Amino acid sequence: MAAPGAPASGEDSLIARYFKPLATDPGAFGLTDDAAVLKALGEDIVVTTDAIIEGVHFLPDDPPDTIARKALRVNLSDLAAKGATPAGFVLTLALRGVDDSWLASFAGGLGADAAKFNCRLLGGDTVSTPGPLMVSMTAFGRIPQGRMVHRSGARPGDQVVVTGTIGDAALGLDVLRKGRVASALEGDAASREMLVGRYRVPEPRNALASAVRAHAHAAIDVSDGLAGDLAKLCAASGVSAVIDMPAIPLSPAASAALAGGATSMSEIMCGGDDYEILCAIPESALEAFIRAAKAAEVAVSPIGSIIAGASVPKFLDAEGRELSLSLMSYSHF
Amino acid sequence: MAAPGAPASGEDSLIARYFKPLATDPGAFGLTDDAAVLKALGEDIVVTTDAIIEGVHFLPDDPPDTIARKALRVNLSDLAAKGATPAGFVLTLALRGVDDSWLASFAGGLGADAAKFNCRLLGGDTVSTPGPLMVSMTAFGRIPQGRMVHRSGARPGDQVVVTGTIGDAALGLDVLRKGRVASALEGDAASREMLVGRYRVPEPRNALASAVRAHAHAAIDVSDGLAGDLAKLCAASGVSAVIDMPAIPLSPAASAALAGGATSMSEIMCGGDDYEILCAIPESALEAFIRAAKAAEVAVSPIGSIIAGASVPKFLDAEGRELSLSLMSYSHF
Repeated sequence: MAAPGAPASGEDSLIARYFKPLATDPGAFGLTDDAAVLKALGEDIVVTTDAIIEGVHFLPDDPPDTIARKALRVNLSDLAAKGATPAGFVLTLALRGVDDSWLASFAGGLGADAAKFNCRLLGGDTVSTPGPLMVSMTAFGRIPQGRMVHRSGARPGDQVVVTGTIGDAALGLDVLRKGRVASALEGDAASREMLVGRYRVPEPRNALASAVRAHAHAAIDVSDGLAGDLAKLCAASGVSAVIDMPAIPLSPAASAALAGGATSMSEIMCGGDDYEILCAIPESALEAFIRAAKAAEVAVSPIGSIIAGASVPKFLDAEGRELSLSLMSYSHF
Repeated sequence: MAAPGAPASGEDSLIARYFKPLATDPGAFGLTDDAAVLKALGEDIVVTTDAIIEGVHFLPDDPPDTIARKALRVNLSDLAAKGATPAGFVLTLALRGVDDSWLASFAGGLGADAAKFNCRLLGGDTVSTPGPLMVSMTAFGRIPQGRMVHRSGARPGDQVVVTGTIGDAALGLDVLRKGRVASALEGDAASREMLVGRYRVPEPRNALASAVRAHAHAAIDVSDGLAGDLAKLCAASGVSAVIDMPAIPLSPAASAALAGGATSMSEIMCGGDDYEILCAIPESALEAFIRAAKAAEVAVSPIGSIIAGASVPKFLDAEGRELSLSLMSYSHF
């Protein structure tokens, strides 16, 4: 912070200009200290951390405000899937240099989403890098003691339910890369824009957190692809699942791309970056969960069942034939 | 985690092999979930985050165990300066690829220090990067409610006290870069090794945290240089300071380098990477603080006084002449 008598450091001035205005939580101390204070208020603190890297998780020419919003939203999505209420976040920003218009846009997007989701900037670190830009965040949520929703906990007979629509973000990335989906939707600018928007700015389902906490046996956020993340939930729970592929919710744009042969169900289910919630809901709670989701204005779709067993989940088409998925989910290595 | 039925993802397998054994805190859930749980136990949670980048904060050929230990220790140092007790950390690791011997060494160093400082791995994110290796950590501490020690709070008349010795890390970096200090200490391998060790593996003063909490009006950890960090503490407190330079604690190696003309007090005070605690102790508590430091086996040295005013701190030599510091501290931009 550039207080009177302080040395005029570029890093301090950058923080004062762009990030101090976002640090409205009293525990952030206006970003003028070495650390922040997070009050637990008698609850458990849920902690999640996710980093996004230029060229890997976002594209160099993505608008800076969308980069900031994606970084925050991928963390918010984890909190939502665990049933926690957002409580704040810290930011590490690795930059090649100071570009004021880039930073102004980045901070603007970050501030807007921090306000929208009531998850405020508590602190951070700004470092220089000779390499790609990186945004790393650690986000915090509050939850009643012992009530975090785990990946484990799914039981045979539970319904597998997913929020929103699946595959849009992966198709949006294909549009940005001018791939087959871009060609198939050449005459449909609105659909292309929608898909790109889903890639750049996911919609975390925090409005559903209390319903997940109240009803789900298990939950995970879909970041690496529906197929792979379902497999992780099943493995952690010691169960398997059968998925009715025609029940997987698709946007009209994704349906059009699929019908036109520009993508496949395999790509849609393995693409990643959806940031939807996938959860196992006991049959007896399904109606109440759907009602709660409706009240929260989050679309939810039952897509299959948890079954006993240790095999990878099965994905059945309309004729009951099993789809073989070679690559289950995105992996960095 | 490579549980039966889970997809064999490189990222999951990397985490299972190297990091799961470190996640011994029950709130880490063996790194098998999307988030961790941190219990506040009725206290405030102090949050700090610091990233280190290859080529900026450490050198590409630094031993991997020292990179891990430095990343954790720079965060532990912030907790110590705030008077907090370590409670755990999350790790984001951006890697170009999987190098098993590098990762084994990194995880080994991390595990050793996590145990030594009782600050356990709670969770993390492992991502691929085409750029320099980056280690970002967010560390948590517990502190009685409302008791975090701030940068602000120093009052005229307080004694300025610093732990350990100053400048060694900056001189160690010079040794690694084969600079003037390396030449001056050419015949003294032990001193060179000590200085390099101070650069690679700082000694966070967590043993002093309770004494800082009990006695300090204000505190900061010295990461960007004694001069600059003192200026920050003074600015946050709305005060100034006068420092008696001959009282600044130097190691024998730093004294030798200084006497031989291979460095200057200006370089020593502006070098950074010390990770010592700088604090303002009221005169009346000085004796008790020194006693507590002795019991904690942490060397502390009074080096000057807080005075009223808004000017940058003054640094006086043995003859009372003021040293002019052009570059007050390290800045990334």
